Amino acid sequence: MLALWAVLVAFPIVASRPQRGPYKPDWESLDKRLLPPWYDQAKFGIFVHWGVFAVPGFGSEWFWWHWQGNKDPAYVNFMKKNYPPGFSYADFAPEFKAEFFDPEEWADLFRDSGAKYVVLTTKHHEGFTNWGSPSSWNWNSVDVGPHQDLVGELGDAVRKRGMHYGVYHSLFEWFHPLYLSDKKSGFKTQDFVFSKAMPELYDLVTRYKPDVIWSDGDWEAPDSYWNSTQFLAWLYNESPVKDSVVTNDRWGAGCSCKHGGFYNCADKYSPGQLPSHKWEKCTSVDMLSWGHRRNMKLNQLLDLPSIIQDLVQTVSLGGNYLLNVGPSAEGTLAVAFEERLRGVGAWLDLNGDAIYSSQPWRVQNENVTVPIWYTFKDSNVYAIFFTWPSDNTLQLTTPKVSPSTNVTMLGNPGLLKWTPMGQTGLNVILPFPFLTSQAWTLKLQGVA
Amino acid sequence: MLALWAVLVAFPIVASRPQRGPYKPDWESLDKRLLPPWYDQAKFGIFVHWGVFAVPGFGSEWFWWHWQGNKDPAYVNFMKKNYPPGFSYADFAPEFKAEFFDPEEWADLFRDSGAKYVVLTTKHHEGFTNWGSPSSWNWNSVDVGPHQDLVGELGDAVRKRGMHYGVYHSLFEWFHPLYLSDKKSGFKTQDFVFSKAMPELYDLVTRYKPDVIWSDGDWEAPDSYWNSTQFLAWLYNESPVKDSVVTNDRWGAGCSCKHGGFYNCADKYSPGQLPSHKWEKCTSVDMLSWGHRRNMKLNQLLDLPSIIQDLVQTVSLGGNYLLNVGPSAEGTLAVAFEERLRGVGAWLDLNGDAIYSSQPWRVQNENVTVPIWYTFKDSNVYAIFFTWPSDNTLQLTTPKVSPSTNVTMLGNPGLLKWTPMGQTGLNVILPFPFLTSQAWTLKLQGVA
Amino acid sequence: MLALWAVLVAFPIVASRPQRGPYKPDWESLDKRLLPPWYDQAKFGIFVHWGVFAVPGFGSEWFWWHWQGNKDPAYVNFMKKNYPPGFSYADFAPEFKAEFFDPEEWADLFRDSGAKYVVLTTKHHEGFTNWGSPSSWNWNSVDVGPHQDLVGELGDAVRKRGMHYGVYHSLFEWFHPLYLSDKKSGFKTQDFVFSKAMPELYDLVTRYKPDVIWSDGDWEAPDSYWNSTQFLAWLYNESPVKDSVVTNDRWGAGCSCKHGGFYNCADKYSPGQLPSHKWEKCTSVDMLSWGHRRNMKLNQLLDLPSIIQDLVQTVSLGGNYLLNVGPSAEGTLAVAFEERLRGVGAWLDLNGDAIYSSQPWRVQNENVTVPIWYTFKDSNVYAIFFTWPSDNTLQLTTPKVSPSTNVTMLGNPGLLKWTPMGQTGLNVILPFPFLTSQAWTLKLQGVA
Amino acid sequence: MLALWAVLVAFPIVASRPQRGPYKPDWESLDKRLLPPWYDQAKFGIFVHWGVFAVPGFGSEWFWWHWQGNKDPAYVNFMKKNYPPGFSYADFAPEFKAEFFDPEEWADLFRDSGAKYVVLTTKHHEGFTNWGSPSSWNWNSVDVGPHQDLVGELGDAVRKRGMHYGVYHSLFEWFHPLYLSDKKSGFKTQDFVFSKAMPELYDLVTRYKPDVIWSDGDWEAPDSYWNSTQFLAWLYNESPVKDSVVTNDRWGAGCSCKHGGFYNCADKYSPGQLPSHKWEKCTSVDMLSWGHRRNMKLNQLLDLPSIIQDLVQTVSLGGNYLLNVGPSAEGTLAVAFEERLRGVGAWLDLNGDAIYSSQPWRVQNENVTVPIWYTFKDSNVYAIFFTWPSDNTLQLTTPKVSPSTNVTMLGNPGLLKWTPMGQTGLNVILPFPFLTSQAWTLKLQGVA
Repeated sequence: MLALWAVLVAFPIVASRPQRGPYKPDWESLDKRLLPPWYDQAKFGIFVHWGVFAVPGFGSEWFWWHWQGNKDPAYVNFMKKNYPPGFSYADFAPEFKAEFFDPEEWADLFRDSGAKYVVLTTKHHEGFTNWGSPSSWNWNSVDVGPHQDLVGELGDAVRKRGMHYGVYHSLFEWFHPLYLSDKKSGFKTQDFVFSKAMPELYDLVTRYKPDVIWSDGDWEAPDSYWNSTQFLAWLYNESPVKDSVVTNDRWGAGCSCKHGGFYNCADKYSPGQLPSHKWEKCTSVDMLSWGHRRNMKLNQLLDLPSIIQDLVQTVSLGGNYLLNVGPSAEGTLAVAFEERLRGVGAWLDLNGDAIYSSQPWRVQNENVTVPIWYTFKDSNVYAIFFTWPSDNTLQLTTPKVSPSTNVTMLGNPGLLKWTPMGQTGLNVILPFPFLTSQAWTLKLQGVA
Repeated sequence: MLALWAVLVAFPIVASRPQRGPYKPDWESLDKRLLPPWYDQAKFGIFVHWGVFAVPGFGSEWFWWHWQGNKDPAYVNFMKKNYPPGFSYADFAPEFKAEFFDPEEWADLFRDSGAKYVVLTTKHHEGFTNWGSPSSWNWNSVDVGPHQDLVGELGDAVRKRGMHYGVYHSLFEWFHPLYLSDKKSGFKTQDFVFSKAMPELYDLVTRYKPDVIWSDGDWEAPDSYWNSTQFLAWLYNESPVKDSVVTNDRWGAGCSCKHGGFYNCADKYSPGQLPSHKWEKCTSVDMLSWGHRRNMKLNQLLDLPSIIQDLVQTVSLGGNYLLNVGPSAEGTLAVAFEERLRGVGAWLDLNGDAIYSSQPWRVQNENVTVPIWYTFKDSNVYAIFFTWPSDNTLQLTTPKVSPSTNVTMLGNPGLLKWTPMGQTGLNVILPFPFLTSQAWTLKLQGVA
Repeated sequence: MLALWAVLVAFPIVASRPQRGPYKPDWESLDKRLLPPWYDQAKFGIFVHWGVFAVPGFGSEWFWWHWQGNKDPAYVNFMKKNYPPGFSYADFAPEFKAEFFDPEEWADLFRDSGAKYVVLTTKHHEGFTNWGSPSSWNWNSVDVGPHQDLVGELGDAVRKRGMHYGVYHSLFEWFHPLYLSDKKSGFKTQDFVFSKAMPELYDLVTRYKPDVIWSDGDWEAPDSYWNSTQFLAWLYNESPVKDSVVTNDRWGAGCSCKHGGFYNCADKYSPGQLPSHKWEKCTSVDMLSWGHRRNMKLNQLLDLPSIIQDLVQTVSLGGNYLLNVGPSAEGTLAVAFEERLRGVGAWLDLNGDAIYSSQPWRVQNENVTVPIWYTFKDSNVYAIFFTWPSDNTLQLTTPKVSPSTNVTMLGNPGLLKWTPMGQTGLNVILPFPFLTSQAWTLKLQGVA
Repeated sequence: MLALWAVLVAFPIVASRPQRGPYKPDWESLDKRLLPPWYDQAKFGIFVHWGVFAVPGFGSEWFWWHWQGNKDPAYVNFMKKNYPPGFSYADFAPEFKAEFFDPEEWADLFRDSGAKYVVLTTKHHEGFTNWGSPSSWNWNSVDVGPHQDLVGELGDAVRKRGMHYGVYHSLFEWFHPLYLSDKKSGFKTQDFVFSKAMPELYDLVTRYKPDVIWSDGDWEAPDSYWNSTQFLAWLYNESPVKDSVVTNDRWGAGCSCKHGGFYNCADKYSPGQLPSHKWEKCTSVDMLSWGHRRNMKLNQLLDLPSIIQDLVQTVSLGGNYLLNVGPSAEGTLAVAFEERLRGVGAWLDLNGDAIYSSQPWRVQNENVTVPIWYTFKDSNVYAIFFTWPSDNTLQLTTPKVSPSTNVTMLGNPGLLKWTPMGQTGLNVILPFPFLTSQAWTLKLQGVA
């Protein structure tokens, strides 16, 4: 008798289903599912890339691949210089000690950053699972290295603070021998899928009841190889998170930006204009890596103004913003990361009204004197700008004013003076002296 | 599409079959198979227990179980004293370096010991495979620790010297999560069997074409759980070693001493009298452990005379003798092991004629003045004794002499004088000065 | 025949000497020496605490003492939790690998911070020398751990960029057995001094020709035990750096704030008003430690505004400012440190004219509307303030204006408008919009 | 004020002294000292080479020298193959863990071997001290690695069993920077001697009160550099062991075989005939190394018969026999060593009467039919032979028999029959069946 996950394979759900389910295991049906509303309201999440790659902490989380996959000389030489001949990637695992890992502390920081959800790499392309996966014996964080259920501990801490919790999961594993033999067969065999990927996805869902499944590593094979639609049908119809879970769009070659829940499209992707489908921009404070780099330098990091602009523009365009930090093998987050996260949090403390639960407005941005980005919520229009106009006056050409129009600045007491500009638009006299900030938000009531 | 091993499960061979095959996947049919003759002729083999357990090198190869299974205080305290809190068994693996492993040197030694076959633990109850098993990713000797295919390298060296090569394989794994969940189900699920045990047995056979499959770790579950009869039917009917392979009797609870190829019955088991079925005694030079112990002491080791007596008695009773040594994590064999193996080899150089390819005689032993053990080959009777009689005369009461009876001592030139003793028996005048030895062999020609 | 340093002891210089030397080995004479002028002009230096303490990276650079000296439970438990029983401090040394140490990169950063000198801990109280000291065999950075001459490599890189280079040196060593036995004798024996402290100080001076000797660890014993005056007499009279070297005031119990070169007095000490003797404030970006802490948090760090205020106030009061960072055992500097150092550098790029080579003015500070700190150079008075006045007007009550008075703001083109205020003082109209900064500097020409 | 050892240097004892002391610090006087009688009576000792060299455990205890001194490719390649670039010898020290070291167990074994004294390398040429030497801080067995006072613990256990205890001490240290600089000066400076060698010798004597000082590493410099005669005068006149201590002859270039206590001359040296001065043969069970080799092989070890012959011949020629074993870094002794030591012990149990407290006889050996070696004690002559004569008759040509001559064999009850042979000599009828042994001893009473 096979385990529960195998049943999914054996007895696919075949009946036709309406929009709210049950769903059939095909994209036509699955794509009709509406996203649970919490996700669009959340707007801002924290992405955490953690794994054995943090031990070498060099180059990026793709260390193993660069070293032994494409044999990049920088990585090959790093190993030659610092390790004995024959040292293998698996030999790193006992050094992933996480001795300073304090999930309460991390979750405090993430909450203080203003994030409403947190997504952790439960298993990256290296195949090491950050929980005690029965299908990854002795290659997981409980059996070796941290000796802790990292997925569970962070999840508990995150949820205790009212945030949502998501699991990043890579479908493929660079060097898993079963994956490699499936690949060699032209993906006609599915040994890897049914002995590793599927049991682990199932295990993740039933154990941790994630709010997000952030799928990745799908691109080398079609979704039929990955069993994606069958899995999603189970996820949406039967799983304990069928009503709350959100997924992304990485479920097989050709799926990205086309099928699934929200769209990530490419890493760090931003659309030029308002997309018709809910999307998320994932990006990383360390511009060169998602995982920890021990030799990270200041000029390789996003600074706080850039992060805030990126967040604002993403939300203005209807996206969510998922900002990544890579913890060290010791379980610490660089102070430079903490500084940026707390900076975003401080900004959102004052300006979050324009972000959380907002929607795109009829116009996303304009750029007459300085760039202005708009959001909309509860009949209010929010105009966000990053540069203080030299004459203390902000010109807005898009909003149509009315007799009942009121203008305030978030974080500033009192109404601002403004004057209408012809058909549409208004000039707003900004307060002085002003708050030092990376961006300021005008709240316009009674405009159209 | 599932891999090749899975086909075995899906399409069991069901047709009725004669004695030389094809065999049906049931004991009635499988038990009828005759052992390939090389095995009974070989008589003497070397057993090698090697694995991650050699790293702690404390207690025995059951280290993990004693430490974390039954929590024996000796093991728990050893860990407390020598390792940081939370250190796990998997953390030992990178220290299994085998940096001095030289398979040619080992194979030279095993050949010089007079052994005709070598059996290596390819996977003990710890589950670590000594080859790059695709079903044991990052918990095998290629991915971590030695970074070598230990099974393959030793096999090549052994066969280059004309010895046969066998693979020890433990069916169960103490702590494998899939095994534990199968066990919890009362062995109704078989996830472990079909994702680990079977794929690995299949892989071992097709990769290394072993002459012996020395199965172990079967006792907690019935053979039906282990898929044993299906595997053996494939092994005997279809596998590349179908005509040459020998197996033992550990294929499920209740099988031992009852089903399979040769019988091991219990570890170190010796029958009191001549059994009707081919058997093998496995025993270990280190009386306390099969695996390496870093703090082994002299009085815990079999000495050379005991080994030679044990070998002689086993062969006299129709058994094979499989003598174990446990290499260190560094890949060395203790000089004390080498000394005993070379001692056996030196003895067999002179006395091997009485051992190799011999058969039990009509009487196995007698004990009138000193104990004497008999073997038989090519119409010759061999009488082996361990104590030199104080009057230089050996009394044999069992052989019936004839006018053409000749008596020689192996390693001694010329015929010995002897005198008949009534109906049966003879007194043999032994040569002087004699060879210093652990045992001497008289070859009796023309006796009945 | 004894080595060179021993000669110093054996043949003390005894003749009477004038102010510029030769100096007698007593404070009366030594205290008369004038500081080489480069030091007062430099104003800003970087302090680097590096050693084996960076390996545990916990608590502070006093880790060893807290763990095994006063047995602070936090440290004792940290060791219990993370290391096997019996692990010793010396066992940490091989993990001090400095594999990412790039002295050129560090020196670039220090130069970019605006610092004019760099002081490295060549040996902290742990006794581990960051150069290959012949008196500290196998307990130094060449023989074990980094396998590099850290003192030499950083020194070369620092000087290549035109900065001065100083050596921190701890006289005492917590656990050195010879020190402990000297201490037990009531400091009547001097075995430690003549076999460790003196040979190493001598070696440092002759090898690296330091511009600063930053002495520490003196407080448990009188200067007569330490041989301090003899050493300084040699240093000022005979050594290769006799004309350029600066020292501080930690040369024996009771010396601090009283004898030597510049005065450090206590760590992080600032005088309330202008002292009569040249002084230096040393402080650390990490407020809890001088050495690397692996689990450092943002709220434990000085932020950039605090650092700049501290620098300004120190210089205004005639002091030098020595700002410390603690590199990791891997040889990296936290990005949060880099960010602060580059922040100071950016500020000094615009405002350095008010800092470097400046002198205290007749008044150090005033605080009418916002706090203002003064410096003086080349007949110009510099007024530095940290808060922008809400009406864009800065009131200065101390300067006496004249018809030729000109006011500019550093980094701002053009003269500022100002109006005199009665007898003394002026109101300056500040430019708008203004530069975002942590502090702004008005340069007043033609005031008294 | 300098430490005690320094006083020795400063105030050499100069008065003329008789044979039993006080001794002058010159060879003429020192060489007159008689050896304390225990030493000659002891005959058999165990030598133990233990140090950091046991960690690589490769080649020999000269590992460091072969690797980095003369750069032997075998050692250089061993390091390249097994360690990261830049790994240093001092980095090995934390791996010298001695976790299985049980001094009681060792001392039991040494006692059971029949040894009457034990000599441990307290410091070999690597300079690492096996006790907490204040002059070798953090390069000793208490501060790093074993975290134990190996010298003290073994000494206590040895003495508890009535054996004498000696300390091997290397004067020179291959890579000590002070030694190297002294050497560079043509040994005109003595910094190394007075800061390392002398303080440590003094410390060893006062702490451990050794019965033997087994000096080594003297050959590169004259005894005047080493301060040898001054030290020995103190040792013989003032030290706590002045009446009991024995020393050897390695006290400076040219001293060996000429000055000091007993003579070792070269390692493994045996004289061809009876020397006029008490001597000792030191040799090692492992013929290729004194220190532990992890990859030791059987054919590189002395076998038991060779050891017993060597012991007998040495004693017959008036020497003591010091047999070496090299423990592992883990604190274990190879079972093959244990086996040989217990073998010697078993032989001495029966034959020790011919060895302990014996003296050379007037003739040392003869070789008519089989080789025979003689010793003498209490008017008895002992004849020891290694080969059993084929006719059970031993011919002795040297002893002169008398009417009262009695011949027995040690371990055999009753008198043996013998017949005189002309002027001198006798034929002895040996007992049968005989004991299996490596050597047999005839005790001749009433012969001349």
